[in-house]
Amino acid sequence: MSAHGARAAAALHPDIAPLSFLLGRWAGEGEGFYPTIEPFAYGEEITISHVGKPYLAYAQRTWSLEDGRPLHAETGYWRCPGAGRVELVVAHPNGIVEVAEGSLTGAVLALSSTAVARTSTAKVVDGVVRRVQVTGDRLAYELDMAAVGVALAGHLRATLHRVSAPSA
Amino acid sequence: MSAHGARAAAALHPDIAPLSFLLGRWAGEGEGFYPTIEPFAYGEEITISHVGKPYLAYAQRTWSLEDGRPLHAETGYWRCPGAGRVELVVAHPNGIVEVAEGSLTGAVLALSSTAVARTSTAKVVDGVVRRVQVTGDRLAYELDMAAVGVALAGHLRATLHRVSAPSA
Repeated sequence: MSAHGARAAAALHPDIAPLSFLLGRWAGEGEGFYPTIEPFAYGEEITISHVGKPYLAYAQRTWSLEDGRPLHAETGYWRCPGAGRVELVVAHPNGIVEVAEGSLTGAVLALSSTAVARTSTAKVVDGVVRRVQVTGDRLAYELDMAAVGVALAGHLRATLHRVSAPSA
Repeated sequence: MSAHGARAAAALHPDIAPLSFLLGRWAGEGEGFYPTIEPFAYGEEITISHVGKPYLAYAQRTWSLEDGRPLHAETGYWRCPGAGRVELVVAHPNGIVEVAEGSLTGAVLALSSTAVARTSTAKVVDGVVRRVQVTGDRLAYELDMAAVGVALAGHLRATLHRVSAPSA
């Protein structure tokens, strides 16, 4: 392997400077619930990084607080296409992709899905609403979902803390 | 942080055993071309891993062979919903999400997008066709794309080699 592509620390692209409060590795716990399931508690790790381009790379995984087994994961990118606007594209391992857009007000993000698509074997998800609020090194989010015939309803709520500083 | 969620080595989920030839970290070089752009050469790294669940986690990044600057990236999941069938969900940092389905024949994957969605500021991509062939520790792929008003045309071609073994 050559030295090409080595991950040097890059300057943050100015387009995503308004989202810099998201950078870092976050860990915490959350609660899951939905009309069709038993409530559950989960641990979560979120990593948000950049490479100097106009997006933040996003990856998340959760695990059961009962036995540590992996639960959900998701991965994608955050973009900031203009003042006060935010975009998110996400792939989910259950065969779902999500496009969401919304507002950025200070360190509060409020997004609604504008498109959800799926593989032919995935469950039907009709919409996702995400609210994220960062206060210093504390990140709290709520996620509502319309899926499997259920109208939009609360599904996830978690609080994480930044456990390592931003890095590229 | 508790010990919950520690990444122990998990057994491969039987559903994705037919895709186990993809596991590992891959590095190599490729060529990009399209009717609307100047051809370019790129370095690439692909990482494909699992956590014991019925999907492979996929992440990729490319860089310019001229100066090492980051070019594309993408991230998502591979699934194997039945004998000879494969599904892929991918998020792209330019605001695109892709759902693709196709066939798995030995170690040859042939997929066509069944859905492409985008944020309101992303360029228009109408379709993606991917062919991947693994021969031992060599992975070759070709990607065709229909985008920005151009009918399906060749866009990427690369060859990578496995540089580290599968890991969870």
